Amino acid sequence: MTEKTGKEHSGRRRIERLRPLLSQKQADTLLITALPNVRYLTGFTGSAGILLLTPAKEALITDSRYTIQAQEELSGSGVALEIARKGLLASTAEYLRRQRGRIRLGYSGSQLTVGHKRILDGALRGRIRWVEASGLVEKLRAIKEPGELATMKAASRLISEVFASVLQKVRIGAQEIQVSAEIEYEIKMRGASGPSFETIVASGTRSALPHARPASKLLSKNELVVLDQGAILCGYCSDMTRTVFLGRAPVRVRRMYQAVREAQEAAKAAVRPGVTAGDVDKAARQVLTRRGFGQFFTHSTGHGLGIEVHEMPRLGAGDPTPLEQGMVVTIEPGAYIEGLGGIRIEDDVVVTSRGSVDLTTATRDFLEL
Amino acid sequence: MTEKTGKEHSGRRRIERLRPLLSQKQADTLLITALPNVRYLTGFTGSAGILLLTPAKEALITDSRYTIQAQEELSGSGVALEIARKGLLASTAEYLRRQRGRIRLGYSGSQLTVGHKRILDGALRGRIRWVEASGLVEKLRAIKEPGELATMKAASRLISEVFASVLQKVRIGAQEIQVSAEIEYEIKMRGASGPSFETIVASGTRSALPHARPASKLLSKNELVVLDQGAILCGYCSDMTRTVFLGRAPVRVRRMYQAVREAQEAAKAAVRPGVTAGDVDKAARQVLTRRGFGQFFTHSTGHGLGIEVHEMPRLGAGDPTPLEQGMVVTIEPGAYIEGLGGIRIEDDVVVTSRGSVDLTTATRDFLEL
Repeated sequence: MTEKTGKEHSGRRRIERLRPLLSQKQADTLLITALPNVRYLTGFTGSAGILLLTPAKEALITDSRYTIQAQEELSGSGVALEIARKGLLASTAEYLRRQRGRIRLGYSGSQLTVGHKRILDGALRGRIRWVEASGLVEKLRAIKEPGELATMKAASRLISEVFASVLQKVRIGAQEIQVSAEIEYEIKMRGASGPSFETIVASGTRSALPHARPASKLLSKNELVVLDQGAILCGYCSDMTRTVFLGRAPVRVRRMYQAVREAQEAAKAAVRPGVTAGDVDKAARQVLTRRGFGQFFTHSTGHGLGIEVHEMPRLGAGDPTPLEQGMVVTIEPGAYIEGLGGIRIEDDVVVTSRGSVDLTTATRDFLEL
Repeated sequence: MTEKTGKEHSGRRRIERLRPLLSQKQADTLLITALPNVRYLTGFTGSAGILLLTPAKEALITDSRYTIQAQEELSGSGVALEIARKGLLASTAEYLRRQRGRIRLGYSGSQLTVGHKRILDGALRGRIRWVEASGLVEKLRAIKEPGELATMKAASRLISEVFASVLQKVRIGAQEIQVSAEIEYEIKMRGASGPSFETIVASGTRSALPHARPASKLLSKNELVVLDQGAILCGYCSDMTRTVFLGRAPVRVRRMYQAVREAQEAAKAAVRPGVTAGDVDKAARQVLTRRGFGQFFTHSTGHGLGIEVHEMPRLGAGDPTPLEQGMVVTIEPGAYIEGLGGIRIEDDVVVTSRGSVDLTTATRDFLEL
């Protein structure tokens, strides 16, 4: 995460890119309370921290549990460390009080709570002018740096290997929950810190529920099984879905698989800088519609991926966000037919000047086990 | 969670207990955005939902992914279901607009975001009078009902059995991360939905860090190993710590273990209705101080436990909250000596009229493996 050996702290670079965005918002100070943003800008991985960008410098406010860890992680970033003696917010207020005059304080309305705002207003008595400045760090985070791409490639490869190794456990008579436990065990054993979301193993008619939680249900003959899994490696998420069949699949299931696979290929082919997120979604949707499965594709085509498993951009119908080089997104069309089952194929791809490049290495062939 | 067979929906009962608390706050409507609170009052287990208590009725606002699930989970609760067509907040605003006149809207400042408040204010144009009403549901949740206690007893027993079964893997040469993967695998295989927090396995000098994350470090001879683990069963958390020694422990380590164990016994003996949370903490701290380990007990003695792994009350120094019958709390004194290692023993107990009753069943004897 923090690449320090002989190089500048990656957080320093990111803060320097963030400052002009802050100025554009007519703010002079930025309050960052979301931990993924704090981590991105400082390398700090603790569970409690607030980052302040003031006109002159930056300060991370955390508590005494994290003194030593924060010192190490911030080393070389130029970010000052403040250990909160009361609460994080009270100490943030105290830090801001040391500034003179009015503070044009940038904040994110979707992250700041009413209670926290009240504490700051109370402590600074009319000196804060609040400036809505949502999404600035998220916008930077959407474009991955080479070091981040290398980590994400490894995270995607790791989950691909987990899938391959667990396949032998995907057999008639196994419980969904057992298969998901095996997947999460392998994720940890291969060096990831854990799953990037609760692993989905959904079989039979349950595979038609895109967000099914693993249950005690046994895998049975002639069933589809959707396996949706991801790993967090060095702070970065992967996210991959494969769908297999237990037995020899009937023609209509094969046709459905083929349609989803072609939809995924069409979406990947549409990916390049300047194309909108909505265009990529449309490419997948057109294939499924042409094949008669359009009405069964009930979610969007994908989402950004990084420190969080859902980031900017969202590849949904009509979304006008233009793709940019260095974005990492999932491409995951699916079709879900009540009473029959569901099929989803999901890969992580990076947007390059020459189009999409796969990070996921697992086979996309239809596996009949 | 929702006990419906022949009985009233448990959410209904809880809502009826909540309404008088709302009236005391001079609010006529309550906005509930925290999912554990929504779950407690409605049985709804989805990942997106807002609950509104209006003077006349209650409504859960969720999205179309959860239509069927919410219908099932709300059945018998009397709570109306609203499927949001735009966003959850926009639909919440729409629902509130159907009320006439001014709305004295209770909310929690630590849960409501500035952005959400702005959406509601914008849509209702001056009709909302905001009333801070934090902690109402949390206060109800702190006192467990018989059905909840039965579930929590099972969750504590489950994690005790996981610990016993994984002990054979706690041996010289195993990686911390491997042991934690084994624990989380067993948690799922025994029917829990997953760990209630990231499992801690910290060995040697790392055991002196109360919040160490499992690492690739190998367990070695003559080391302390702290294992802190919990499971979520039917929506309720357990939380248990045991500390073992690899080899034959030196006298000073045994003495330290004995001091922590006696501190835990003293804290448990102090538990009864009417005693303050701070008194329980004091009981543990006094024993450790008398034995010369007071300065090494660097955290509070415990915390409430339930749908979340940290709930009301907090058993910290000087906390004036009186314990009440039906509360479930952890009792987890510890001692952490830099360079030597740490020892923590943690059980889940319920507060009864006759004092504390253990839910955790694992042995508290000092295990030298």
